[in-house]
Amino acid sequence: MELKIVEIELEAHGDMKDLTEEIKKFVKESKKDTGAVLVFSVGSTGAITTIEYEPGLKKDFPRIMDKIAPYGDYYEHHKTWHDDNGSSHVKASIVGPSIVIPFVNKKLMLGTWQQVVIVNFDTRARKRRVVLQIL
Amino acid sequence: MELKIVEIELEAHGDMKDLTEEIKKFVKESKKDTGAVLVFSVGSTGAITTIEYEPGLKKDFPRIMDKIAPYGDYYEHHKTWHDDNGSSHVKASIVGPSIVIPFVNKKLMLGTWQQVVIVNFDTRARKRRVVLQIL
Amino acid sequence: MELKIVEIELEAHGDMKDLTEEIKKFVKESKKDTGAVLVFSVGSTGAITTIEYEPGLKKDFPRIMDKIAPYGDYYEHHKTWHDDNGSSHVKASIVGPSIVIPFVNKKLMLGTWQQVVIVNFDTRARKRRVVLQIL
Repeated sequence: MELKIVEIELEAHGDMKDLTEEIKKFVKESKKDTGAVLVFSVGSTGAITTIEYEPGLKKDFPRIMDKIAPYGDYYEHHKTWHDDNGSSHVKASIVGPSIVIPFVNKKLMLGTWQQVVIVNFDTRARKRRVVLQIL
Repeated sequence: MELKIVEIELEAHGDMKDLTEEIKKFVKESKKDTGAVLVFSVGSTGAITTIEYEPGLKKDFPRIMDKIAPYGDYYEHHKTWHDDNGSSHVKASIVGPSIVIPFVNKKLMLGTWQQVVIVNFDTRARKRRVVLQIL
Repeated sequence: MELKIVEIELEAHGDMKDLTEEIKKFVKESKKDTGAVLVFSVGSTGAITTIEYEPGLKKDFPRIMDKIAPYGDYYEHHKTWHDDNGSSHVKASIVGPSIVIPFVNKKLMLGTWQQVVIVNFDTRARKRRVVLQIL
């Protein structure tokens, strides 16, 4: 199967989960030995990036993102929908929804301390959908 | 046609336009039913991302980007060219020039409130070129 | 050859190098006339983006990134490993590890002042590996 949708339960305000094992498995089961895999977050308040997935950075990354676009600020977005997640949208748009990772002989070319993560910047817990696709 | 160049007129300082309909049309007219589409901004003061395209966030996103890299700051770039768009370059490099979006049966796998946008961070109105390409 | 690993020596704290000539050469020697090239940074404290590669922005970009995630701040990451590069990880995760660039008739579709760069956000000089791959 060359495309897979993964569903991930995430807490609010920058919670992240490690997708690396899921992606490795997807690549292993694909028809290609060498290629690239697209990782795409469906929805406007989630984002994909790589990070060293460890408890410290799981706190540092959301803290810095909230310094950039503070939850407590006033956002024009709140006037449109009367909700509270203007900061979430801005954070997700800065980090971005997609990355592409090369693989050779079924092995992802990531660094030892480089994991692929989905981040939920929304202000409520969300089940997020991530698309994995062999390019 | 598997590659298309779109030209978009944009105002200065973070103006954005929704490319989603253009990309949907491009995918519909392509030879592939399932695949991925690259969206790439040509030029160093434009950027591509996804966002909920509504009037509030159209103001919030440029405001936060200008908090990160204020137009009024001093930039070494201005010494090189005697221009005023150092902040534009920095903003565009943070957001980035490319995203890749999966599609299945001719349908883009975007969230309901997730639109693809080109952002012009330059300090003057620009006609920006965006490349769409089936991968 | 459709995949190439490039090794680049970089100084610490946001030093960047221009990869554009290397990528042009790689595309020229590839089997494809028209396609897209993936540029991916291996490791969690490096990032890939496009920028106008000139001496001014080489200083402006790291300065703004350090305003976002200051080196001197306290990071939980430092508690995990007793090192000092929490800010490096956060900066790299914001900018991101991958971009994809279209090419037509062997020519990269970049703007005249748009170069592809690898940035080393680590707090020590690093030899960074960058993967180039034809998609």
